[in-house]
Amino acid sequence: MAGQSVLTPQSEDFPKWYQDVVAKAEMADNGPVRGTMVIRPYGYAIWERMQAAIDSRIKATGAQNAYFPLFIPESYFHKEAQHVEGFSPELAVVTHAGGEELAEPIVVRPTSETVIGEFMAKWIQSYRDLPLLLNQWANVVRWELRPRLFLRSSEFLWQEGHTAHASASDASDYAKRIHLEVYNDFLESQLAVPTFLGIKPPSERFAGATNTMTCEAMMRDGKALQMATSHELGQNFARAFDIYYQNEEGQAALCFTTSWGASTRLVGGLIMAHGDDQGLVLPPAIAPTLAVIIPVRDDEAVAAACQTLHTELLGDDLRSAIDRGRGSFGRRLTDWEIKGVPVRIEVGPRDLAEGLVTIVRRDTGEKMPVALVDVRARVRELADDIQRDMYQAALAFRDAKTIDVSTLDDAIAAADEGFARLAWDQIGESGEARLKAEAMTVRCLQRPDGAIPASDLEVGLIAIVAKSY
Amino acid sequence: MAGQSVLTPQSEDFPKWYQDVVAKAEMADNGPVRGTMVIRPYGYAIWERMQAAIDSRIKATGAQNAYFPLFIPESYFHKEAQHVEGFSPELAVVTHAGGEELAEPIVVRPTSETVIGEFMAKWIQSYRDLPLLLNQWANVVRWELRPRLFLRSSEFLWQEGHTAHASASDASDYAKRIHLEVYNDFLESQLAVPTFLGIKPPSERFAGATNTMTCEAMMRDGKALQMATSHELGQNFARAFDIYYQNEEGQAALCFTTSWGASTRLVGGLIMAHGDDQGLVLPPAIAPTLAVIIPVRDDEAVAAACQTLHTELLGDDLRSAIDRGRGSFGRRLTDWEIKGVPVRIEVGPRDLAEGLVTIVRRDTGEKMPVALVDVRARVRELADDIQRDMYQAALAFRDAKTIDVSTLDDAIAAADEGFARLAWDQIGESGEARLKAEAMTVRCLQRPDGAIPASDLEVGLIAIVAKSY
Repeated sequence: MAGQSVLTPQSEDFPKWYQDVVAKAEMADNGPVRGTMVIRPYGYAIWERMQAAIDSRIKATGAQNAYFPLFIPESYFHKEAQHVEGFSPELAVVTHAGGEELAEPIVVRPTSETVIGEFMAKWIQSYRDLPLLLNQWANVVRWELRPRLFLRSSEFLWQEGHTAHASASDASDYAKRIHLEVYNDFLESQLAVPTFLGIKPPSERFAGATNTMTCEAMMRDGKALQMATSHELGQNFARAFDIYYQNEEGQAALCFTTSWGASTRLVGGLIMAHGDDQGLVLPPAIAPTLAVIIPVRDDEAVAAACQTLHTELLGDDLRSAIDRGRGSFGRRLTDWEIKGVPVRIEVGPRDLAEGLVTIVRRDTGEKMPVALVDVRARVRELADDIQRDMYQAALAFRDAKTIDVSTLDDAIAAADEGFARLAWDQIGESGEARLKAEAMTVRCLQRPDGAIPASDLEVGLIAIVAKSY
Repeated sequence: MAGQSVLTPQSEDFPKWYQDVVAKAEMADNGPVRGTMVIRPYGYAIWERMQAAIDSRIKATGAQNAYFPLFIPESYFHKEAQHVEGFSPELAVVTHAGGEELAEPIVVRPTSETVIGEFMAKWIQSYRDLPLLLNQWANVVRWELRPRLFLRSSEFLWQEGHTAHASASDASDYAKRIHLEVYNDFLESQLAVPTFLGIKPPSERFAGATNTMTCEAMMRDGKALQMATSHELGQNFARAFDIYYQNEEGQAALCFTTSWGASTRLVGGLIMAHGDDQGLVLPPAIAPTLAVIIPVRDDEAVAAACQTLHTELLGDDLRSAIDRGRGSFGRRLTDWEIKGVPVRIEVGPRDLAEGLVTIVRRDTGEKMPVALVDVRARVRELADDIQRDMYQAALAFRDAKTIDVSTLDDAIAAADEGFARLAWDQIGESGEARLKAEAMTVRCLQRPDGAIPASDLEVGLIAIVAKSY
């Protein structure tokens, strides 16, 4: 009974499937300026739920939200050598404002380490002011030559956390806490996306960082997507922006800083981690609509039953919607499938005469007759079941496509379809160059048990090799 | 027992008092680029509560959030003649990006009617797609020569709603609904700020609007601040961006559009509407911290009692905080006064021995001994009392400084210290010019009963004349 797909099948052309889903599910459009993006209401509603889940986790670690300016003096970028080298090619520059040419060009922020560093220096006096834990939700601009909605856009939305600490270990512990308790917990429990956690090899670090932690997820085409990163910045930015504190002995000491971010790219990751040939498949925790009630036929009794169910579900804080779409029943099913709503409640006159409705799971397609009085309980139960099953399915998919190998050649062969796990000391600089030639990279370095290493210099590290977005 | 003020008294220099409060309450700082602003955590926490309260009201009217690009092609601004004339002097322009000069300069959005108009035209096909009700939370840039934190900054944060309708009356009804149910309700019930509602005279309309509704509030120095505006745009933008729909008869018809916004300027309005010589005075509904628990002395029993109270208050969803500040008790009181926390709970060993604490209201300074077991109930009660009393106090203050006059001369005399109400037909174009020479304007036009007129052409309208921010 499921509608025919109106999307390019994943197996035929995955990038085209992605484009189709983003368009047909009304997630986003290309903006008029190259690489910019219009996030449509359905896409934005998903982002809002992501924001709420990430924001509450960030606040639970003690960080506070603030807001720093979009415009940064160009000179700030020259204060940290690696940072300017990394970001220069991507900057958008304001040269005129208020009808006049500006004395100093202004950069539209690509990230805010520099301007926040300036204010940390101003606000931090003594060890009592540390740690200083800040976060902001903002737009940033990085000029993009090969833009792709959500995944790589010239402007994107994100949160960027910036913290200052008295010691390297405090900084490192906090960055790791963010990585595990905010990002990884969010990805696993809300997005139902399993991750490989690890650190980037030196060649892939954030510009100006001493260590970059990453969460890498597998998409349905076997490629990797970096879902969030957390950087230890050592004293690089503290030195560039004079972020000093007076320690307990009364001496001036340089702070250690961190930064960490997750962006609207997560929406792209969500689409590609769970989607199928019928469209989006949303985990219940993040779906703007948990259950859609679809009248099978235009009928007064059916309409009344739909309204009653809707009111009851909302009363139980179960996010329901009634389909008031136009067109045939089949067409409407197809539309809701594309939008990935986890639970479909089909209400028809025949079922209704027996006090029943038909509930359908988006993830498995399973259909079940449910008594009207049991709908609320069943929907609540399904929300948990689907969330758990989607995570397990994604984990099984990833593990089946993740292969332990012992040579670079085998890694290259395996990473054509999934992830390869290879001893890091088998790769080295020359290996990274060979991978690059195959459009592959080392996504992260892990300890053999999957834990996050403190440094790429630890012995016995495993490299995850993959193609990526 | 209240600490000595560390602020310039309002009566001595109100603008200096404002600057002092913004700095000492750690609300905001000037950014490095002219006119930009850093919103510090305390200021941002207030803005977040404002956002939540406004956002839920907007959604209750049926509008959905979306996100449109920061960057708008310069050519878009030339499509609506009044719009480009109004905004050109304030635009910031990106001429270089990705290391190259751009073929067409890009404007950093000062407002989004143009780019949203472009997408409305794309998304709207038939009358069934109407009304289209969109809102976005975003930053915008308007180059500012005389910047002032929160009140006038080159970059500010806001929500901007944009809607399209099938008829002028639908558009007008919806804009009015936003004005009353979102803005005015928020201002009165959350910020405890009474408003004068009305429409702008033609000279003060938004660039491109056919009608602009406004909420005008009185600050503690008797000046007016425009807190939010809602615009009927007629068919001006629909014509410029080809926003057509097919009506029920199958004919192409032009839409009518609206836009409406409220910004971080509200934070400035909140400060100036209620603040006193000791600092901020926050209404309980918007205060990030409703009650602060202050140990009078460093003492184990006191600390334990504070922690118990704190846990109990939080358990009741009463936003409490424990003062862990440094310095003397008097100094800490002063700091919390500056921050305007509505309720102070002072816990000292002597009171504690009798099972009591001292509760102090920020708005009136009233002190009351309260039994430990009654603290939660009393704080809850005070939240309502203070909210109501602050509104009443602001209303009484405003009404005492609002004077009915019958000549322009008398209006000019009265508006030196407050608001003057004068028949609109006593003013006219020459009157507006005379007011301008006195640094005064017609803030809004009302019906004699205070209702919002449909047009400035209605007979018998009253003009509110004032100095303003």
